[in-house]
Amino acid sequence: MINKLIKKIEKTHAPIVVGLDPMLDYVPEHIKAAAFKEHGETLEGAAEAIWQFNKAIVDATYDLIPAVKPQIAMYEQFGTEGVKAYQKTVDYCHSKDLVVIGDVKRGDIGSTSAAYAVGHLGKVQVGSKKLSAFDEDFATVNPYLGSDGIKPFLEVCKEEKKGIFILVKTSNPSSGEFQDRLIDGRPLYEYVGEKVAQWGEEVMGDNYSYVGAVVGATYPEIGKVLRKVMPKSFILVPGYGAQGGKGADLVHYFDENGLGAIVNSSRGIIAAYKQEAYASFGAEHFADASRAAVEAMIKDIDGALQAR
Amino acid sequence: MINKLIKKIEKTHAPIVVGLDPMLDYVPEHIKAAAFKEHGETLEGAAEAIWQFNKAIVDATYDLIPAVKPQIAMYEQFGTEGVKAYQKTVDYCHSKDLVVIGDVKRGDIGSTSAAYAVGHLGKVQVGSKKLSAFDEDFATVNPYLGSDGIKPFLEVCKEEKKGIFILVKTSNPSSGEFQDRLIDGRPLYEYVGEKVAQWGEEVMGDNYSYVGAVVGATYPEIGKVLRKVMPKSFILVPGYGAQGGKGADLVHYFDENGLGAIVNSSRGIIAAYKQEAYASFGAEHFADASRAAVEAMIKDIDGALQAR
Repeated sequence: MINKLIKKIEKTHAPIVVGLDPMLDYVPEHIKAAAFKEHGETLEGAAEAIWQFNKAIVDATYDLIPAVKPQIAMYEQFGTEGVKAYQKTVDYCHSKDLVVIGDVKRGDIGSTSAAYAVGHLGKVQVGSKKLSAFDEDFATVNPYLGSDGIKPFLEVCKEEKKGIFILVKTSNPSSGEFQDRLIDGRPLYEYVGEKVAQWGEEVMGDNYSYVGAVVGATYPEIGKVLRKVMPKSFILVPGYGAQGGKGADLVHYFDENGLGAIVNSSRGIIAAYKQEAYASFGAEHFADASRAAVEAMIKDIDGALQAR
Repeated sequence: MINKLIKKIEKTHAPIVVGLDPMLDYVPEHIKAAAFKEHGETLEGAAEAIWQFNKAIVDATYDLIPAVKPQIAMYEQFGTEGVKAYQKTVDYCHSKDLVVIGDVKRGDIGSTSAAYAVGHLGKVQVGSKKLSAFDEDFATVNPYLGSDGIKPFLEVCKEEKKGIFILVKTSNPSSGEFQDRLIDGRPLYEYVGEKVAQWGEEVMGDNYSYVGAVVGATYPEIGKVLRKVMPKSFILVPGYGAQGGKGADLVHYFDENGLGAIVNSSRGIIAAYKQEAYASFGAEHFADASRAAVEAMIKDIDGALQAR
């Protein structure tokens, strides 16, 4: 799947991923009104609204991008109905041949981590059958529990040729509270990055490993260091746009071929129609505003890579 | 909810929690056969089997125990159907007046963490309504992202009088890879424990905080240290039984009144009928075997607390 992701990036010239994190506040009133009319102001109504919102954005952008990253929290907040909308979104993106990165940030130990791994990336044994459940292509994973939490994912990645992105240095302001603490003079995130590189050796694609890392756009100097610590790990970069990251800050996350990183934008794309720059589209044409925002983001990142 | 948990522990004399982590391998053949007969060897069939298994165990043990801890990974592996079985289990345990600790180990940042918090513990805004989704009483939370990941949970805990248990030192063999790394001579888990104590001050119940910690039974010396670092935090203790922890190892996790900790056992109770000690019950009477295992666990821990 890492090979497929790379091929799709090369084809689209777009090392970006659209974060499908549909807060209800982002969904235009006409979509919410239609969903609430059918299902009432219920969890089912909310789930229907975010699904219709997602579908329109995917329809308007899928030919420009290699991948999407639905954030499962935004679906889980609506309970089982929300989780069904997550599944519909994953399946629909697959029907458009998009690579799906499930931003689930799971992490547990032993048989529990194995359950997450088979449920999200692999196949679960039911009687004599092996069945797929959520079936994303990649999942994000939290490393706090150490190798015991990661190894069950590696097994499934090997079997299914799928991948994971392990949290190394997150984009948020307080990420340093634990991740930056110095151990023998070096920050914790470097130790985690070293383990990512080591875990990744076991599960190599053609040029990059199935095991990638999450490094926030908001810490470009750290990105530069971690690129070297994990030379074979693709970096998933959150924090672009709304959180403050810009294309010019991110050139060191990439290799000399413009590969090795994929930059996520969520709010900046899916709620583009709410920004001044795209306000002229109006709420009715929110998906066209998203398409324009995708085009601008590709231009920003491609421009920065060309200019280096 | 921490006050309710403590009252229930005092009433049952059982500082224990039954981990509802139903692997399909634990479910007796007759339950699986009935579920597969109705739904086929499908995700729906698997979900029905684990739900029937859970229900029988809850019916056989609820009067002895204060709380249950369903591990959501074991449900998520069966996709949306599994998540529905998780919700049914949470709701059924509430109908039996059990405190429900959702072992979800979520952790993200800002609005994403807020979405997890409202989805699992709070109420989500849908149009003019505020609706509950999963509605557990406690959730487990991963601290790797720092305060940004925790504070949205604190807000919801305040509003709803619910609680969280933050991973500090996990029970697995590799937990030391990152958690034990020394920072200025002190291990990372102590820093995390200090933050737990600090976060917890904002959200106090009568004697203990709504903010608790997870500390594995398999590291009793560390438990002794962390008890002092977080004097007002209840400790959720995994790793008893199948993972090797014993009652006598755990006395230092408790305060002088036998409070301050709650010990989880999953496999040791729900799959008791597979152990030699309880084999005479047979697979047909698996729930009675679970009841006997609960009684033995209460005796082991109570005995250890009396003997200190």
